[in-house]
Amino acid sequence: MRGNLLYGQSGGPTAVINSTAAGVFLEGLAQTEAIDRVYGAHHGIVGILEDDLFDLTEEDRRELLLLKQTPSSVLGSCRYKLADPEVDETDYARILEIFRKYNIRYFFYNGGNDSMDTCQKISAYLVAKQYECKVIGLPKTIDNDLVGTDHSPGYGSAARYIATTLMEIHQDATVYERGQITVVEIMGRNAGWLTAAASLAQLKCCGPDLLFLPEKPFNLDQVIETCRQAYAEKHNLIIALSEGVKTEEGKFLPELEADLATDAFGHKQMGGAAQALVDILQQHIPTKYRYIELSLMQRCSAHLASRQDVDEAFLLGSSAVQAAIAGTSDVMVALKRPEQGIYRPEICLVPLREVANYEKAIPLDWIKPDHTGMTQEFYDYALPLINGRPDLVLDEDGLPRFAHLRLKPVSEK
Amino acid sequence: MRGNLLYGQSGGPTAVINSTAAGVFLEGLAQTEAIDRVYGAHHGIVGILEDDLFDLTEEDRRELLLLKQTPSSVLGSCRYKLADPEVDETDYARILEIFRKYNIRYFFYNGGNDSMDTCQKISAYLVAKQYECKVIGLPKTIDNDLVGTDHSPGYGSAARYIATTLMEIHQDATVYERGQITVVEIMGRNAGWLTAAASLAQLKCCGPDLLFLPEKPFNLDQVIETCRQAYAEKHNLIIALSEGVKTEEGKFLPELEADLATDAFGHKQMGGAAQALVDILQQHIPTKYRYIELSLMQRCSAHLASRQDVDEAFLLGSSAVQAAIAGTSDVMVALKRPEQGIYRPEICLVPLREVANYEKAIPLDWIKPDHTGMTQEFYDYALPLINGRPDLVLDEDGLPRFAHLRLKPVSEK
Repeated sequence: MRGNLLYGQSGGPTAVINSTAAGVFLEGLAQTEAIDRVYGAHHGIVGILEDDLFDLTEEDRRELLLLKQTPSSVLGSCRYKLADPEVDETDYARILEIFRKYNIRYFFYNGGNDSMDTCQKISAYLVAKQYECKVIGLPKTIDNDLVGTDHSPGYGSAARYIATTLMEIHQDATVYERGQITVVEIMGRNAGWLTAAASLAQLKCCGPDLLFLPEKPFNLDQVIETCRQAYAEKHNLIIALSEGVKTEEGKFLPELEADLATDAFGHKQMGGAAQALVDILQQHIPTKYRYIELSLMQRCSAHLASRQDVDEAFLLGSSAVQAAIAGTSDVMVALKRPEQGIYRPEICLVPLREVANYEKAIPLDWIKPDHTGMTQEFYDYALPLINGRPDLVLDEDGLPRFAHLRLKPVSEK
Repeated sequence: MRGNLLYGQSGGPTAVINSTAAGVFLEGLAQTEAIDRVYGAHHGIVGILEDDLFDLTEEDRRELLLLKQTPSSVLGSCRYKLADPEVDETDYARILEIFRKYNIRYFFYNGGNDSMDTCQKISAYLVAKQYECKVIGLPKTIDNDLVGTDHSPGYGSAARYIATTLMEIHQDATVYERGQITVVEIMGRNAGWLTAAASLAQLKCCGPDLLFLPEKPFNLDQVIETCRQAYAEKHNLIIALSEGVKTEEGKFLPELEADLATDAFGHKQMGGAAQALVDILQQHIPTKYRYIELSLMQRCSAHLASRQDVDEAFLLGSSAVQAAIAGTSDVMVALKRPEQGIYRPEICLVPLREVANYEKAIPLDWIKPDHTGMTQEFYDYALPLINGRPDLVLDEDGLPRFAHLRLKPVSEK
């Protein structure tokens, strides 16, 4: 069916979500027999609800290609959760109104678990209202916790950043003759995929000594004892700590800390997990401490993206457009790993209902029980995902050249 | 004079100090008419005092070349300060003993202000004792606060990391529709050169909105008002904050915070400057906050080194060896910028006494008085230093290949 294309981005940014956007835009612009105009939603679903769309049809194609090396969500993102349509239909009716207004017949939504939920609800509503529109979800999350796909675009680049950075931090943090404990905090509220990536630095001789993932119980006494023994042995300890580790009472480390410390203004001081662990450890193991949060850098460092990840993200975008034009709807495009042989992922389609709101944790038997690292299964899984460096276009001063889009508001047409 | 060469590293590591080491080692090994063996001190001056040296004469030359892309101090570092020789001669006598034992006739010490002081004191002592040895200091500091040289090796790479990372953080931190204040803490206890590098991201359209350097007084009320106005205007604010900013009472921001907050164990909680500024600002400007510390990454990210910096660091190392063999002593090798025309620095020699214990602050008139950035003079100064990316050798998994040295202890000979 002939009509217009709309694409939106949602949730936390990654180094490669714009590569998926580039895949959608360039394929959409090439499919002139099915698609008239290519639109983008400003701040995801919020931009649709507020009639705040961009027209990308006239963008310079070279700038669109530069999206492959431009981190974060170029259209803006959101964390808006749609109501259950059986309880409150308001948002859905508004979305349908906007889709009719702009003759949207191909809709692509790029995000994580919540976004696939959004996608599925919209898809079901449009079907119920007999409005013909192909709806496809595009996976994205550095956390790698999406089910239905071998891995999520964004993870490989974040993992490459984490592995490289842990190698470099190791070189730096072990340089003095006196001892030190360095705690590096890594993202992942419920899943330890990113923290596990720190183990790839170990493979190269210089990674963390201990890893703590949210999949394993975090018994504070045992953790202190494990750290004490490791420090006594090595005299210089690097710990990779997931922000998502929880004590047996179900508390995140900063919550535990907040119970203890209240500042002079009466509000609870809430640092990160690494800072909290350092505060705890220094009561028990006297030495010098440093905590490091990889913070936003682990998800936005496009300069250190994995080429494999960039290329897969782009391919998922263009494949989704092709699948939609071929008549597919109500699915997420996903990556499937061949059973054996050289890693070359295939594109597959997974029903949205099989993806929405599930979370994929790391297999427990991939985590060494003594917290010293991951097993070979994890290496085999992760190493192909971080490989290759992109041909980064730099400007005359040696800094990255990000895409400059005009982002023409649709209402000005 | 024929003899052996000894090289040591001191102070905080950088991304390129090992490139200087490579220059010293490879030139030292090539100068077979003057130099028999090439030694390295384990943990700088501490290794000399403890008779803990490595013999690098038999190292694989390809591995030595890989030092150009291996961050941090490969021999280990120290922060040991020699006593005034007129007060306590013990350390100097021991150093002379070790120099005699290993026939050290060429000594190179790589570090910042304090290391040049160490270097000068050793040089003076050896002269006084009529022990013939050429002593040359090699500059190194990401802080760029060494006098006598146009800039210090290490600064260009750290500045390239900071500019690139601020561009990427900007993309990420401005992605949501709701407002946010992001405070990025950058190293530099007394000098704002590194924080100033964040302004290079502004040139590329996406840097911090406000910069606070230690060279300018940090009046808390004015800073809050400046932030309030900027946030009201932009609704999304990124602040580059030097760890070294001080209030008018002479307190660093974390000290101010520590006066206010004491945790349940009775010890003062000491976060970073960014965390402290966030704690202060959120009493006055209600919005979402995030603080980010660039921490060790800004000094050890060899994957993002400036090629100019790597090459200059190497050249300083090899030039120092040549100068010493030609009979020069008691100097620091330094970089001189041509008065005009294309940037191509010359190597020059500066007496150690003109360098030791001085600090070079950023010219005050290079800092815009409204805290919004730096002037063109700074851009002209800094841009040539961050340019070019090194031809990074990666391993089969796409991770950096660091040098693997044998580091043979000398006592085993």
